[in-house]
Amino acid sequence: MKEYMKKIDGGVTAPKGFSAAACAAGIKYQGRTDMALIYSDKPCVSAGTFTTNVVKAAPVQWDMKIVHGDGPVRAVVVNSGIANAATGKPGMEICEKTAEAMSALYGGKRDEVLVASTGVIGMQIDAGKITAGCGSLYEQRSDSIEAGTQAAQAIMTTDTHKKEIAVEVSLSDGKTIRIGGMTKGSGMIHPNMCTMLGFVTTDAAIAKQWLQRAISEIVDHTFNMITVDGDTSTNDTYVILANGEAGNTPINDIGEDYLRFREGLFFVSEYLAKEMAGDGEGATALFECCVKGARSLNDARTLAKSVVGSSLCKAAIYGHDSNFGRFLCALGYSGVSFDPDKVDIDYESAAGKIAIVRGGMGSGYDEAEATKILSENAVSVQVDMHMGGESATAWGCDLSYDYVRINADYRS
Amino acid sequence: MKEYMKKIDGGVTAPKGFSAAACAAGIKYQGRTDMALIYSDKPCVSAGTFTTNVVKAAPVQWDMKIVHGDGPVRAVVVNSGIANAATGKPGMEICEKTAEAMSALYGGKRDEVLVASTGVIGMQIDAGKITAGCGSLYEQRSDSIEAGTQAAQAIMTTDTHKKEIAVEVSLSDGKTIRIGGMTKGSGMIHPNMCTMLGFVTTDAAIAKQWLQRAISEIVDHTFNMITVDGDTSTNDTYVILANGEAGNTPINDIGEDYLRFREGLFFVSEYLAKEMAGDGEGATALFECCVKGARSLNDARTLAKSVVGSSLCKAAIYGHDSNFGRFLCALGYSGVSFDPDKVDIDYESAAGKIAIVRGGMGSGYDEAEATKILSENAVSVQVDMHMGGESATAWGCDLSYDYVRINADYRS
Repeated sequence: MKEYMKKIDGGVTAPKGFSAAACAAGIKYQGRTDMALIYSDKPCVSAGTFTTNVVKAAPVQWDMKIVHGDGPVRAVVVNSGIANAATGKPGMEICEKTAEAMSALYGGKRDEVLVASTGVIGMQIDAGKITAGCGSLYEQRSDSIEAGTQAAQAIMTTDTHKKEIAVEVSLSDGKTIRIGGMTKGSGMIHPNMCTMLGFVTTDAAIAKQWLQRAISEIVDHTFNMITVDGDTSTNDTYVILANGEAGNTPINDIGEDYLRFREGLFFVSEYLAKEMAGDGEGATALFECCVKGARSLNDARTLAKSVVGSSLCKAAIYGHDSNFGRFLCALGYSGVSFDPDKVDIDYESAAGKIAIVRGGMGSGYDEAEATKILSENAVSVQVDMHMGGESATAWGCDLSYDYVRINADYRS
Repeated sequence: MKEYMKKIDGGVTAPKGFSAAACAAGIKYQGRTDMALIYSDKPCVSAGTFTTNVVKAAPVQWDMKIVHGDGPVRAVVVNSGIANAATGKPGMEICEKTAEAMSALYGGKRDEVLVASTGVIGMQIDAGKITAGCGSLYEQRSDSIEAGTQAAQAIMTTDTHKKEIAVEVSLSDGKTIRIGGMTKGSGMIHPNMCTMLGFVTTDAAIAKQWLQRAISEIVDHTFNMITVDGDTSTNDTYVILANGEAGNTPINDIGEDYLRFREGLFFVSEYLAKEMAGDGEGATALFECCVKGARSLNDARTLAKSVVGSSLCKAAIYGHDSNFGRFLCALGYSGVSFDPDKVDIDYESAAGKIAIVRGGMGSGYDEAEATKILSENAVSVQVDMHMGGESATAWGCDLSYDYVRINADYRS
């Protein structure tokens, strides 16, 4: 980690001036929290990236209008029961009502409130439940670390654990800023944003265009490099709010402080992305593919994503089976042109590293050793294409019985 | 079925002048047949389509050279133990030895013999076993229906049943021709050819260019519209041999007889493609998606394939779960642009038909009725995009626990 950066406790409430809350609004599930709030005492500039799916959930449409506009943001209201996608006009009215309810509580305008949803597609949300939930969230909000953690738990669907992180970054003017984030992922996770909701807060003072530039640059190397099942969801949202409470000289050019801020945001984003990949539905292992020696960055990304996205490669990882032909096969159908006779492949994990393929053919490796390396809960398949100088890393997870179990009866 | 066509018994030995055989050569599996021969008494013209994977198995490279050349073909030798992919020069030498062994038996040249392999990638084939197998196959060859069936069984890997079919077509000169085919599929099945091997024989007299045109036109509507797991294999091969033994006026233009021949080949190809999709690894149901009202044929194909290729849609079919948002989601991330508020979706099966989505939203349908329709072993999801006049159908299968079980320990 860079000398100007350190990891600190907490998540979205770690930066100054942000509070959070969770409540059980009974949107769909019973006996668990299912709504979360992130709230800033001061107006924030916002930036974000959203799903590329043509079918965009109502809250995605709502948020895109706000984040791509010029106005301030004060709050984000999330529910994890119903995705509010494929819900037509009534779905958009729910976004309006949610934002109205929250903004009325703090005395602001409805277009300062972002709304996010995840869960089942096609069902309508009960307006009464969501507005009641807003009241409860606003009342309970707190800037404690625990409040941030409770929010991170409330946004989970089939996630097995909450995902949050925070860092502190020293800027060149001696001021320190903080960046905190939380995500939920699990199913419908695929490059170009996922069934993932991610929210980052920072107390840095930074101009909107530089905030947007940082998040756009980072998403291509982090969230857009993970896949669970190849299904790009209707609801993917990754948003950052900056309230300027750290009092630093505002970041407004590509100087040292922008680079430090970006490094901090990169650390937070990469951590959250990898956490999501490794906690994919039914996953027993984080499955990483590093490609080097590609002709272009785009080639490297495409190749790495093809491997971690392949059902057959994922099933091989689940079975700890060194069926290297499947990795070669997934490289081969990625759409990237290369010389198959040049490809080298290694496996690496906490149990060691082993050469598997040399010049497109099996290296005559020891099967027991390969199986041992593939049996760890984080496994890396490292490919050298010998075609050029570009590299990229993608993250996914194995394909298990539980993925099928979870998704065959998700709604019940 | 057209009045000039009828289904007949058998497979690749149904057309005149073709014989077949199977034997247990012990290439990899024990206690089962694992090699097959198709043999023609007379020289054949050939045509075919092959995998688009950059990593092409040695037999694919061998066959492409022959099929894209001008010479005659007399035989196809298949093994179902080892794919002979990622095997470098030794792998190509196995193809040469196989073709030499077979051509020596009937007294011909090695470049008249096609070779096909399916099974594990990255292992080398034992040359002694394969040449011994050639001897046994040639000796046992027979033009009986049973011999064709035995060949169809010998090429299976994780297929649960053999796949063969034959038709008879009356041409305008009063002659009848026959077309017979067999395939194996199961895993690594995805558009742009699959881990599928398909072989078709015909006694029609037809010029090479028209044979190639027919198979190319048909593959786009049949084999390239099926998917099991999105993994385009290194070995996909679909080849047709025509020996002219029916004595018809040779087909050499786009007249009535070409159209009748193509109709026959389409029937055979569509049957075999659907059989492969429905018998995908672990499948409990054939999962069809018909898209109409698309702006272009390419859009229609892309949309239909996106739905049958989605892990989440496949898991919903396995669970008989009317989670229609997943179908909308898969349409949305296909890359095709459309208006989500116009989409209609119906389900249809032997149990009935039901309207599920109207104008991009749930129709308020009866859940029990939808579940009943999705519980059949062949289920159709019918989409009207209301964007234009083009349509396409794609076929796949559901995603079950057994897919994971089969693929987590395929090599053991």
